[in-house]
Amino acid sequence: MSTPAAATPAGAAAGASTTGTTAGTNAETSAGNTAHAGASSAVEQRLAELGLTLPDVAAPVAAYVPAVISGNHVYTSGQLPFINGKLEATGKVSSGTEGASDEPTVSPEAAKHYAAVCAVNALAAVKSVIGDLDRITRIVKVVGFVSSDPSFTGQPGVINGASELLGQVLGDAGQHARSAVGVAVLPLDSPVEVELIAEFA
Amino acid sequence: MSTPAAATPAGAAAGASTTGTTAGTNAETSAGNTAHAGASSAVEQRLAELGLTLPDVAAPVAAYVPAVISGNHVYTSGQLPFINGKLEATGKVSSGTEGASDEPTVSPEAAKHYAAVCAVNALAAVKSVIGDLDRITRIVKVVGFVSSDPSFTGQPGVINGASELLGQVLGDAGQHARSAVGVAVLPLDSPVEVELIAEFA
Amino acid sequence: MSTPAAATPAGAAAGASTTGTTAGTNAETSAGNTAHAGASSAVEQRLAELGLTLPDVAAPVAAYVPAVISGNHVYTSGQLPFINGKLEATGKVSSGTEGASDEPTVSPEAAKHYAAVCAVNALAAVKSVIGDLDRITRIVKVVGFVSSDPSFTGQPGVINGASELLGQVLGDAGQHARSAVGVAVLPLDSPVEVELIAEFA
Repeated sequence: MSTPAAATPAGAAAGASTTGTTAGTNAETSAGNTAHAGASSAVEQRLAELGLTLPDVAAPVAAYVPAVISGNHVYTSGQLPFINGKLEATGKVSSGTEGASDEPTVSPEAAKHYAAVCAVNALAAVKSVIGDLDRITRIVKVVGFVSSDPSFTGQPGVINGASELLGQVLGDAGQHARSAVGVAVLPLDSPVEVELIAEFA
Repeated sequence: MSTPAAATPAGAAAGASTTGTTAGTNAETSAGNTAHAGASSAVEQRLAELGLTLPDVAAPVAAYVPAVISGNHVYTSGQLPFINGKLEATGKVSSGTEGASDEPTVSPEAAKHYAAVCAVNALAAVKSVIGDLDRITRIVKVVGFVSSDPSFTGQPGVINGASELLGQVLGDAGQHARSAVGVAVLPLDSPVEVELIAEFA
Repeated sequence: MSTPAAATPAGAAAGASTTGTTAGTNAETSAGNTAHAGASSAVEQRLAELGLTLPDVAAPVAAYVPAVISGNHVYTSGQLPFINGKLEATGKVSSGTEGASDEPTVSPEAAKHYAAVCAVNALAAVKSVIGDLDRITRIVKVVGFVSSDPSFTGQPGVINGASELLGQVLGDAGQHARSAVGVAVLPLDSPVEVELIAEFA
């Protein structure tokens, strides 16, 4: 897996995918929240062992933000598979044997990888508001939206990319309730979008 | 923007769009929750400055309600762009240059307006259970569903209609996490549906 | 309605539909949580009066679980209409007069029944983590996803199957906020998927 370096909430306007993001322009990402600050937390060490670092979090471009704290929960915006500010792929997910569309499609295997990228970006969004991912006590809920060819029914396998990543880096705290659904189309023609609710202490 | 006068939850049966709603028949909308009671709260004053008043909230027509309080949160039902009890538009959202469907479609600009109407109706649903919108301390999460032509990928721009409205009337408290997705079809062929979670004190 | 005997979260891998589940292999379903343990709670007695028993809850097959407790809330995974470990139907929901697809479809009436099955499975998921459904103080939120022919707009009527079931067995505590949306396709080609948030004491 590549190293994501910029998460953008799914609510971002289309142009946001080409908007560079730096911590300096983003009040949400205070000092210490850069990808280069070192993997000081146990969660980030496990990410590093998987070859992953947390991206910077994109600046809000509208009246919404990457994540909100309410009580001891963090709600993230829907996350797209951005890496270094670029959407990794576009198109609907289709198993090759089923789809008959002329449009380019994304394989289930590739989409599972992109779902993991979404999960990493969701963790970055969580960190942007609680500062340290080791404060996470539980991933409560994950919803995964898969842009799907109408004949593709393997959404659970795709969203396993996110679920397995969360389990790998958070252990028991990463065990979540989950819904996976196949939608008609996603922002910027993204193949997958993942949102989550995290409990923290 | 027109003045919405009746919100109906997305769960309403199809016939509900033609069912008149009055505060007198709706236990959920106690005295003081009518659109004509005067904009006593700061939030409603800002709505009034935008030319908006809160609609009455439709009576529940099934074993669900427009909004539920749990702890210090309000969860709303999915809101459709009803104004005066009438769904403002039907059809899928499509950019004119992409869609090739013979069916009538809704432009992204119009859909953004309808998303704002959904947000107003969501605020009315919140008020129906907490009484005063000034009690809102934060809009925690918004999910926006856009009935989308499969080639339409501008869901974020559509749901900005809801996000910007919430920011205009709630200020910092209106800054929320958000997901925007494109779905195959919505109840009553609505072009957009918006649900939210609000924190209140 | 038949007697469901195994709920499987929507996140289950495709193969899960043919995987037998027994309480003995599932740490989530401790003793007392079998369908044959007797309807000791008031909620289960009402289910029994409707001819329903709670299914066993499927073992987690990935880094997610059927339900998670956070504070005094339970979040369930998306539930499919499994009965005895078998998905009751596949296909998109369509009114007969509208759909022109050659693929098999599910009628709105049948889909409403399957939504009720989803709700029973969601209650089983809740019980798997809180032990006794009489502890439920409120169903806070239900989201119902209906795999829909693009011309089918009766999602509310379908999800009423879940809402009415919850009202029948939980009374006032079953009155929830709700969103119903029509999606392109669901896991395993299920016609409907339901998730919920329950408050308990």
